[in-house]
Amino acid sequence: MGRPTALLLLLAFLTPGAAIRVPPAMKALSSLRWSTSFTSRGTVAKKYSIHYIQQKVNHFGFDADKTFKQRYLIADEHWKKNGGSILFYTGNEGDITWFCNNTGFMWDVAAQLKAMLVFAEHRYYGESLPFGNKSFTDSRHLDFLTSEQALADFAVLIKHLKKTIPGAKNQPVIAIGGSYGGMLAAWFRMKYSHIVVGALAASAPIWHFGNLVPCGVFMEIVTKDFKRSGPNCSETIRSSWDAINRFARTGAGLRWLSENLDLCTALTNTQDVQNLKAWISETWINLAMVDYPYESDFLQPLPAWPIKVVCQYLKNPSVSDAQLLQNIFQALNVYYNYSGQASCLNISETTTSSLGTQGWSYQACTEMVMPFCTNGIDDMFEPHSWNLREFSEDCFKQWGVRPRPAWIITMYGGKNISSHTNIIFSNGELDPWSGGGVTKDITDTLVAITIPEGAHHLDLRARNAFDPTTVLLARSLEVRHMKQWIRDFYANQRKKH
Amino acid sequence: MGRPTALLLLLAFLTPGAAIRVPPAMKALSSLRWSTSFTSRGTVAKKYSIHYIQQKVNHFGFDADKTFKQRYLIADEHWKKNGGSILFYTGNEGDITWFCNNTGFMWDVAAQLKAMLVFAEHRYYGESLPFGNKSFTDSRHLDFLTSEQALADFAVLIKHLKKTIPGAKNQPVIAIGGSYGGMLAAWFRMKYSHIVVGALAASAPIWHFGNLVPCGVFMEIVTKDFKRSGPNCSETIRSSWDAINRFARTGAGLRWLSENLDLCTALTNTQDVQNLKAWISETWINLAMVDYPYESDFLQPLPAWPIKVVCQYLKNPSVSDAQLLQNIFQALNVYYNYSGQASCLNISETTTSSLGTQGWSYQACTEMVMPFCTNGIDDMFEPHSWNLREFSEDCFKQWGVRPRPAWIITMYGGKNISSHTNIIFSNGELDPWSGGGVTKDITDTLVAITIPEGAHHLDLRARNAFDPTTVLLARSLEVRHMKQWIRDFYANQRKKH
Repeated sequence: MGRPTALLLLLAFLTPGAAIRVPPAMKALSSLRWSTSFTSRGTVAKKYSIHYIQQKVNHFGFDADKTFKQRYLIADEHWKKNGGSILFYTGNEGDITWFCNNTGFMWDVAAQLKAMLVFAEHRYYGESLPFGNKSFTDSRHLDFLTSEQALADFAVLIKHLKKTIPGAKNQPVIAIGGSYGGMLAAWFRMKYSHIVVGALAASAPIWHFGNLVPCGVFMEIVTKDFKRSGPNCSETIRSSWDAINRFARTGAGLRWLSENLDLCTALTNTQDVQNLKAWISETWINLAMVDYPYESDFLQPLPAWPIKVVCQYLKNPSVSDAQLLQNIFQALNVYYNYSGQASCLNISETTTSSLGTQGWSYQACTEMVMPFCTNGIDDMFEPHSWNLREFSEDCFKQWGVRPRPAWIITMYGGKNISSHTNIIFSNGELDPWSGGGVTKDITDTLVAITIPEGAHHLDLRARNAFDPTTVLLARSLEVRHMKQWIRDFYANQRKKH
Repeated sequence: MGRPTALLLLLAFLTPGAAIRVPPAMKALSSLRWSTSFTSRGTVAKKYSIHYIQQKVNHFGFDADKTFKQRYLIADEHWKKNGGSILFYTGNEGDITWFCNNTGFMWDVAAQLKAMLVFAEHRYYGESLPFGNKSFTDSRHLDFLTSEQALADFAVLIKHLKKTIPGAKNQPVIAIGGSYGGMLAAWFRMKYSHIVVGALAASAPIWHFGNLVPCGVFMEIVTKDFKRSGPNCSETIRSSWDAINRFARTGAGLRWLSENLDLCTALTNTQDVQNLKAWISETWINLAMVDYPYESDFLQPLPAWPIKVVCQYLKNPSVSDAQLLQNIFQALNVYYNYSGQASCLNISETTTSSLGTQGWSYQACTEMVMPFCTNGIDDMFEPHSWNLREFSEDCFKQWGVRPRPAWIITMYGGKNISSHTNIIFSNGELDPWSGGGVTKDITDTLVAITIPEGAHHLDLRARNAFDPTTVLLARSLEVRHMKQWIRDFYANQRKKH
């Protein structure tokens, strides 16, 4: 957390590092026509077909008229041509099959909405690479990785589906997405209201830009999650940074840390220690995002309410440095070794490889500039202010581009969005991203749904016997709104004819 | 009219050819801080200041981080910081000072709306050239000439004005534009509703794309204008094409045509004859656009109701070919030689040089693909079908780009725009562009105003003693809507605080 490089990692934590252990079953399935997802109620088979559409690499310029193949998935088991609907997942920063398997909500509501499910992959992620394996080579090849291009892909794809699938033409389309994909869903409704009748934007931090919200809000929520999950838990973590710093002063200390934290690569210098602290911080952040009420496997395989499990090891901030850090190690192992198969911990990775780290790092350096900061008082992290200039330098070094921090607000309106309609903003109160989200109704049709016991887009996950009542309520409200949009669409259509 | 090249010209006729005679007064004034426009009631002084803003050449990509200077004009004589407003002219395909001087309506209503007037120049026109004199050299330099980039310029400019002009921050902005600029005004409200509270889109043919309206509608309206302006007028023009064709069969005939039509350059081959007919067609089209009820000087200096004057020469379709074409020559002279100073007629030019022919030709070849056709029965022109393939080939030859005819509809919604609010679509029924415009209310706040005696955006012109009642009514309705938007804006603002 202490340095800009760490902040770069932090900024990338919608899609941080590559995975340590992606469960083999899931990896293999991503290339099959049949995919299987696991819930606490057992295995639910998910059947979809895989398709590709030729998209313009540049929707906003005509010089290079190149195209690329965008992947999308269709599941139409419950679709009805008569009175049905289309639920369109606005793919975000990762492999679309992974999102497809982690968005059980859409599968759960398909029958009652007579819905065709479409999952569209975001350009520069998964298989949808505009320049194949050259897509990330330099800023010239990355020049078409923007939210605007992604939304244009979605618009073109929907027009294509309506034209080519018999029965789809006169059906309402609803955009659904989570996290960055939730932002895309909301923005899609804002910018292409002629194409989607409404949007469910789950855990979408559309206000985590500029100074729309305080830069510290994110880490404060992470801290609250640990505070509520066990006595002295956040205080213990707050104490751990200095303990690490004290160990890090000597070569013997570095060796002790490397051994006792079971690191795959030994720490040798100050930069390594900064990286270690950034990696630990990101682990706490990730835990806050996936603090689900049941065993799950989103970023990592985890027990139910993982922060509670973690906090069992973090009850006492006043023990010796060595004891404190051994407790931290136990806590980290809940996240990194729940399956018991890790032989060591790799501090360059924190999550599944299904997320596209490179792409998100570039996006964070261009459009998606989200300020973060900590003060060590309202949060449990080492203090770090937001420094745009340093951030810009780092971006230029890494990608050869400069961030434009005001652009997203100019483009999508910031807090001034009340002229739009039919968007649901759902947020889990445990989710650190809720700090940048819309958590109060803006108008009758721009509604906020908050889920007190919810972490990052819990509402988009498959229903589960351990779901708290508040998420069930949220989902049923969401369905009620969607049904209303669908009814309105058909009523308008009848009026026209 | 008979050939693709002619159609290319036709497509470019929002901004056709360079001017024969721009009145010297107007040319000289365009570089001054003071500008003067002439109305039948005398000279009205227009005072504005000239400004420049650095804009990103590419708002939608981060690789080349270049900027260019966009010009804009401000007139704030009547602006009130307390309860005022900002009227923002969304510049179209020409020099902004020329539009500024031809949009008297904004000047006329400034006082009652306590309004600051801002006239923003469209990129690639006037002085706002992204690559200076290299801007039109090839498709690489032209790659940033799109409506999306232009709208982004406008958005950035308004944010800048609100930030830098004390008192502007909490004021409502209304977009106003005519013709292509009217489309931009409407689209600006659709895509940036957080930046403008409403739009007046005058004579904006937002539906002249794809097959949203029949491709023949434009030329049918041109024909109707001539039909209503004098007995046998449209029939005489319809007869003229064959007369020209008969003359064109021999060298002697070509010489006769060249001499009797007073052409600056003699006709020598078939292509010249096609060009002659295209130029004559464009003249009739232009006359239909500027068939104003008083002496005016928009595309050319002209008498009041110029088509009536033209039709006085075109009363008999049944005379000899020679007589018919001599009559046509008289008619053309109304348009090209009202000032009596033309020594010959130049068939490569039809209007003022303040319009940017090159830029519009490129735009017509990329995004702004408007299908036109004639059948010689419902219109007075030689039959010509719309041939996208030929058009595409011509575009590729001329600019190295291919048109994407579906894109504008995907981007801006085509006929499916009812979810938007606060847009006035005004159309003159004499204006051929009204065929592609919105001439019926879509909702309570997407309203159509039609002006039976109006040609191309007559409502945007300065008030005039000879204004028909219907345009006065239209303007007062427009002001009423704008006042409502402004009231709503301030009421919402009070609610928030």
